[in-house]
Amino acid sequence: MQSTLIDVPRGLAGVAVADTAISDVNGAEGYYQYREHSAVELARTASFEEVWHLLVVGHLPSGSELGAFSERVQAAQRSAELARVIGSLRGGAAQTSLTPLAGLKAAWPLLSAARGMRPVYDLDDDGRLADAVELAAAAPIVLAALHGAGRDALPGRGVVANYLFQVTGRVPSAAQERALTAYLVAAMDHGFNASTFTARVIASTGADVASSLAGALGALSGPLHGGAPARALDSLDEVGSPERIEPWVRAQLAAGRRIMGFGHAVYRTVDPRSALLKEVARGFGGARVEFAAQFEESVERLLAELKPGRELHANVEFYAAVVMELCGLPREMLTPTFAVARTIGWTAHVLEQARDPKIIRPSARFVGPSLGA
Amino acid sequence: MQSTLIDVPRGLAGVAVADTAISDVNGAEGYYQYREHSAVELARTASFEEVWHLLVVGHLPSGSELGAFSERVQAAQRSAELARVIGSLRGGAAQTSLTPLAGLKAAWPLLSAARGMRPVYDLDDDGRLADAVELAAAAPIVLAALHGAGRDALPGRGVVANYLFQVTGRVPSAAQERALTAYLVAAMDHGFNASTFTARVIASTGADVASSLAGALGALSGPLHGGAPARALDSLDEVGSPERIEPWVRAQLAAGRRIMGFGHAVYRTVDPRSALLKEVARGFGGARVEFAAQFEESVERLLAELKPGRELHANVEFYAAVVMELCGLPREMLTPTFAVARTIGWTAHVLEQARDPKIIRPSARFVGPSLGA
Repeated sequence: MQSTLIDVPRGLAGVAVADTAISDVNGAEGYYQYREHSAVELARTASFEEVWHLLVVGHLPSGSELGAFSERVQAAQRSAELARVIGSLRGGAAQTSLTPLAGLKAAWPLLSAARGMRPVYDLDDDGRLADAVELAAAAPIVLAALHGAGRDALPGRGVVANYLFQVTGRVPSAAQERALTAYLVAAMDHGFNASTFTARVIASTGADVASSLAGALGALSGPLHGGAPARALDSLDEVGSPERIEPWVRAQLAAGRRIMGFGHAVYRTVDPRSALLKEVARGFGGARVEFAAQFEESVERLLAELKPGRELHANVEFYAAVVMELCGLPREMLTPTFAVARTIGWTAHVLEQARDPKIIRPSARFVGPSLGA
Repeated sequence: MQSTLIDVPRGLAGVAVADTAISDVNGAEGYYQYREHSAVELARTASFEEVWHLLVVGHLPSGSELGAFSERVQAAQRSAELARVIGSLRGGAAQTSLTPLAGLKAAWPLLSAARGMRPVYDLDDDGRLADAVELAAAAPIVLAALHGAGRDALPGRGVVANYLFQVTGRVPSAAQERALTAYLVAAMDHGFNASTFTARVIASTGADVASSLAGALGALSGPLHGGAPARALDSLDEVGSPERIEPWVRAQLAAGRRIMGFGHAVYRTVDPRSALLKEVARGFGGARVEFAAQFEESVERLLAELKPGRELHANVEFYAAVVMELCGLPREMLTPTFAVARTIGWTAHVLEQARDPKIIRPSARFVGPSLGA
């Protein structure tokens, strides 16, 4: 195409496509951070709304900031336009077997249109933040409504408790709310994965925030990106009992299949999110957690034996899946729940990208027969 | 983030992010091609369906292949699921001032769900092609229906004539059908622009074809990407008469504003698509075309004087806008009409990307305060 094309690794691995102050993942040393805070520490201690505020506004909220932010989220979740969008999707869902994820892909552009949201370059920082918070607040409501019965919110409870209640129909225990909060906070952002990058490419054209989120969700819905937790549980079920772990793993690897929930594109040591979620799962105790730990131990041992030097450990999806199951979430809601978390990161990246109005427009190397000139 | 980060130009300009055999743009020499054919020659002579087949199947169709392909397109456009999706969006549109573009963003995931479409990595080449053709066939139907009255198809006419009829309510002349075909073919694909790249990033996760298209449309809806033709006509209207061109252009440039429809990220000489569409517009004759030519001539002369060495010429959007106006398309349908064309390119890129299952996952440089290890 052009004589000056710059070659880079396939899949853009290791290519710094932008500057960011939102999060940092150090895969070699095994830590990661949200702005200037340890993400794992936040997952252990902070609320969903606090870390949401940190990522999109830029700092942890004061008490009064948190109150105002939470009210803003609740108002967005109660809006008449959101209720109408959900109603029209639920009306169609009976005919079309609409999944919660597909419904959210449609809901965001419909909500943007209903609320008259505008291109990001036509808005100032406050206007963009308002749209970003409103659209992210809609995500758990849309997903729960398209999964279940469209339950009203629990008075006085936050996003996480309400999401669990609206999906499962049961008021969550304090331990469940804390456990799911730990997962959601840990999953909010994680470098320039495919969905986050998609959000930024779309934002770079000046499109409205909803366009970036819907595109990012499309990427997350790909099996290589967001589908691992559900498949990790499928593996646990398939294996069934401790004595079957080793033959099953050997058969998988002999057939050239991956073990879902193990290995990561970035981490070359234990994923710190995984260690945290393992600790959270262990807090629940019980046979399922014990079996998961045995499975992890066996897989890591066999991977070290059969793929020496690769440093393949349980990734965040493995214990994330176990934690979500312990919180009562059904398997088909694992990827949607990941989306609830990651939406927060996407909005932070859209806001950051929108402050730098330069369209992302790469090139390609033409490998067909050239017409020449 | 990683010690081995690779730095590239901002916006990935000139970075070869993939290999492609679909199209090639030689900006320095001013030619471009679809596979092994001159794209401008195709725009002059071939039908919309023929070039669609070329881009997604890989070769120009024989007579019988074209017949079968056209029937497949028409069947997709008449499907009961598509009618239901449009019906539910039109039902909601009255409440929510849904634009055709926002409606199409929602229609694709809804249609995918209604038709049970699957992740691209779960399909073979034929299955992916079937989904790609069906979703692209839906685009002009959805856009026209959300703009206008939901008119039935003209018997025995192709995609372009039907689109013009369904948007405007008038049976197009042969000259209008040929002119819009020339524009649509010329606009189907053009390298790794932001929307095409978005489609490929999403496809690289294995998501269904609809997710890639909806994300790409989100990018196209950004003012920096798909909004230029309508703004070019706004400029012509604002200037109004030949003697006002020069003072208006000088005032725009003095204020640091861009002249919409001039300059391109890639071409450093005359855009060959622009020359073709100018010729097409001239075929219609009339005062509007004359004025557009005077405007072009004046702007190019003044840009050469005021921004010497920059080689700023009319880009494809300028005469594209004039041609679309001559075909009777209202201004709010210019970006949607661009989407009808570019959807074909997106589907070709999704099919190409899906054959190479490697997730696109770049990195970023963290510029906040580091926690260190």
